[in-house]
Amino acid sequence: MATSSAGYDPKIFTPLTFHDAVPAFLAGSDTPRAYLERCVETIAAREPAVRAWVSLRVEGARADADAATERYRSGRPLSSVDGMPIGIKDLIETKDLPTTNGIAGNEQHTRRDSACVQALRKAGAIILGKTVTTELGGATPSVTTNPFDPARTAGGSSAGSGAVIGARMVPAALGSQVGGSLIRPASYCANFALRPTMGGLHRGERLGYSHSILGVHAGSISDMWHVAIEIAKRSGGDPGYPGLFGGDEPSEPIKPRRLIAIETEGWKLTDERTISAFEAVLDQFRALGITILRRQDRYPIEAFEQSIAEAGQIVGGIIAWENRWSYENLVELMPGKLSRWTLAVLDRGRAMTLEDYRALLARKEEASRRLQALAPLADAILTLSSAGPAPLFEKPDNPDPRVPYGTTGSSSFNSATSVLGLPAVTIPLLGVDRMPVGIQVIGQPHQDDTVTGLARWIAEHVSPVTA
Amino acid sequence: MATSSAGYDPKIFTPLTFHDAVPAFLAGSDTPRAYLERCVETIAAREPAVRAWVSLRVEGARADADAATERYRSGRPLSSVDGMPIGIKDLIETKDLPTTNGIAGNEQHTRRDSACVQALRKAGAIILGKTVTTELGGATPSVTTNPFDPARTAGGSSAGSGAVIGARMVPAALGSQVGGSLIRPASYCANFALRPTMGGLHRGERLGYSHSILGVHAGSISDMWHVAIEIAKRSGGDPGYPGLFGGDEPSEPIKPRRLIAIETEGWKLTDERTISAFEAVLDQFRALGITILRRQDRYPIEAFEQSIAEAGQIVGGIIAWENRWSYENLVELMPGKLSRWTLAVLDRGRAMTLEDYRALLARKEEASRRLQALAPLADAILTLSSAGPAPLFEKPDNPDPRVPYGTTGSSSFNSATSVLGLPAVTIPLLGVDRMPVGIQVIGQPHQDDTVTGLARWIAEHVSPVTA
Repeated sequence: MATSSAGYDPKIFTPLTFHDAVPAFLAGSDTPRAYLERCVETIAAREPAVRAWVSLRVEGARADADAATERYRSGRPLSSVDGMPIGIKDLIETKDLPTTNGIAGNEQHTRRDSACVQALRKAGAIILGKTVTTELGGATPSVTTNPFDPARTAGGSSAGSGAVIGARMVPAALGSQVGGSLIRPASYCANFALRPTMGGLHRGERLGYSHSILGVHAGSISDMWHVAIEIAKRSGGDPGYPGLFGGDEPSEPIKPRRLIAIETEGWKLTDERTISAFEAVLDQFRALGITILRRQDRYPIEAFEQSIAEAGQIVGGIIAWENRWSYENLVELMPGKLSRWTLAVLDRGRAMTLEDYRALLARKEEASRRLQALAPLADAILTLSSAGPAPLFEKPDNPDPRVPYGTTGSSSFNSATSVLGLPAVTIPLLGVDRMPVGIQVIGQPHQDDTVTGLARWIAEHVSPVTA
Repeated sequence: MATSSAGYDPKIFTPLTFHDAVPAFLAGSDTPRAYLERCVETIAAREPAVRAWVSLRVEGARADADAATERYRSGRPLSSVDGMPIGIKDLIETKDLPTTNGIAGNEQHTRRDSACVQALRKAGAIILGKTVTTELGGATPSVTTNPFDPARTAGGSSAGSGAVIGARMVPAALGSQVGGSLIRPASYCANFALRPTMGGLHRGERLGYSHSILGVHAGSISDMWHVAIEIAKRSGGDPGYPGLFGGDEPSEPIKPRRLIAIETEGWKLTDERTISAFEAVLDQFRALGITILRRQDRYPIEAFEQSIAEAGQIVGGIIAWENRWSYENLVELMPGKLSRWTLAVLDRGRAMTLEDYRALLARKEEASRRLQALAPLADAILTLSSAGPAPLFEKPDNPDPRVPYGTTGSSSFNSATSVLGLPAVTIPLLGVDRMPVGIQVIGQPHQDDTVTGLARWIAEHVSPVTA
């Protein structure tokens, strides 16, 4: 694997954060407007190479930042994210910017705000622009490059939201995940990120998938949590779901007593250096007195691993079936515009029957039952966030268009959490081949607050590992 | 209550049916084109008074009918609904007709087919037009009049879909229900109708409510079932749901052994003549050797009744919260266009918190648990489909805009099935004040096939009652 000239070192990289600027806003020694201008400068410097933004509203953001500056001056910020510049994945509707859904040449402009965007505006956050998504959130590669090596992907589908954090352009961005679309780019781009429990943040117009989720990319756990909870408080979760649980502040750090380290289907696809870095992290846990349990240690862990051994196939089938009706419409509405990756998903869906889909739901339910058996064994589950660092763009694309996730990387460590709707926080803890790789802390449903506290403790007590 | 000159007698009224025309299509003595022309003639005669259609595509339907005629001629119909003219509630997208969502002056045309419409076209059914809905499916009265008395409402929100069946314009129409929007107009307009188990038929773009459902209005149980199952086979249920279960043909008639007759919150709101007609039906059941259990007979029935005693409040709160983000957008996009009923729902949602919504979900879950305790007691649940016949338009509207369901009638017999997502089939069995009233057979989740079989037996063995 080639090394880049710039590269990434987890011991040196300092992400952009917002929460620690707030005291200065209140004291008057810094302002949201000045903070925004620093973001705009970084974007001007980095965007030509990173290509993370579809659109920006700099003048509108400046007006919003001035209003936030006034609120801090009068000591009455609207929330913990008042004045925070945020990037919005371009699958999510914003009334003042078009939503392309990653389709080249799509000029759709709904002039609506998605529920999460409404919530962010009410909380005073600044919608700075739309971040690049792969086409319809699928496996089609995007134009965005990795902020630590322009020869590599930023991942997908939330490519831009991952990259804007890695490039220090903004302190937080919204992403979404139905396969590996949030945790994977976060891993490739050295983000912290939360993919909440299924239904945690209202998906607005994006309710067509049974298990997709909105989440937050950020440079710090504090900003990550603040963005998530301020959305949840205002727009709630998906219809029928209780939404993200937790307080206004992120959980205090929680030291785990026991952790389950799982392999998922990703283990066999991961390079040796990444595996060795992950094992070095597990050794640190053991040295800190934390028990690590693995598939060979307890039967319920082995049973769970078996039930998710083909999670990627389950996710792929569910996506194909659930996409069918909307893709059929898009094919008619935009003839010739959709990529071969998207058309392959449609073909797969057309070949399915309702019974095929029911079988996938049954396999998902079986894995959920086996997951419940893990609850008494440990405080949380731990695994890699991606199968190694971001691959190079030059990697030859798979000639079979039915095999997804070519050049946006493998979602093999994300399919299980996606289909089971589990809360996960990724921590940028590893540097492999001078590129970032994350590890993720995974909980039972509705343990978002707990996994956030565990992730805080890990980020504070476990040393970054390079390999 | 005034009587109309025309009026309704359940012993005389003969609905329009399709399934019994199919043998003649196959024999060549009748054709789908001729069937369609008879529908078009009826529409020409009745529509000026009934006002059930927003738009029609007669020429397109004629071409579709000719194609179906050819398929029958060659002995290869696509399905049991090949050539069937169907009305589509105007909340549901059709690529060749606009979708107004019941908003006056809304010219939106998405040029997409909803999942159910895609399925119907693939099955050979003929999309004849869009039927009137109340504004956004809410409590705003519509222009549609009752086919048995133009001085009365056809109900709502599926006003047009109920009326086109009562007026014998088409043999089937699609409706939807989030409160009482499907079973209530079916009751008022002498329809058979199926509201499936939650998630039974894919809602397409209409996924914003946690418990709304698509269903079928028809002149017969056979047509009702055929339409539903042919949709389910092709588009499946909602994302994450297994969809409607059952065979290509409706269940054989099933004689019940025991039935639970429930009151719901509607009982106290119902006139004496309707109550007496329903009691006369119960007497017929007893005479046929069927045990009737009521709230005073078994504690679990009383406990269930108590848990749904405020189902209307639960539904209203859930609707208000879940509508909030989309209505906020509509208010900005269509200033001044929305009715006071819609704005009242938005105001109610704005006043809610996430904790308020979570409390409503908890009450729904408690009622679901109590429902499960009824399963061993009886084959199904029985109740009225509406709190008496359709009210007169002249009924003074409630001056408090926060009180919904003014002139579209009371959904008090429908809120519980709506929020609990239960399968229900309504049977046009009563004539009260020379107007139709239905009774509904309600099952546990996924007993759609069973309640259809029970409804068939009841329709064949229980005599209509007039009062």
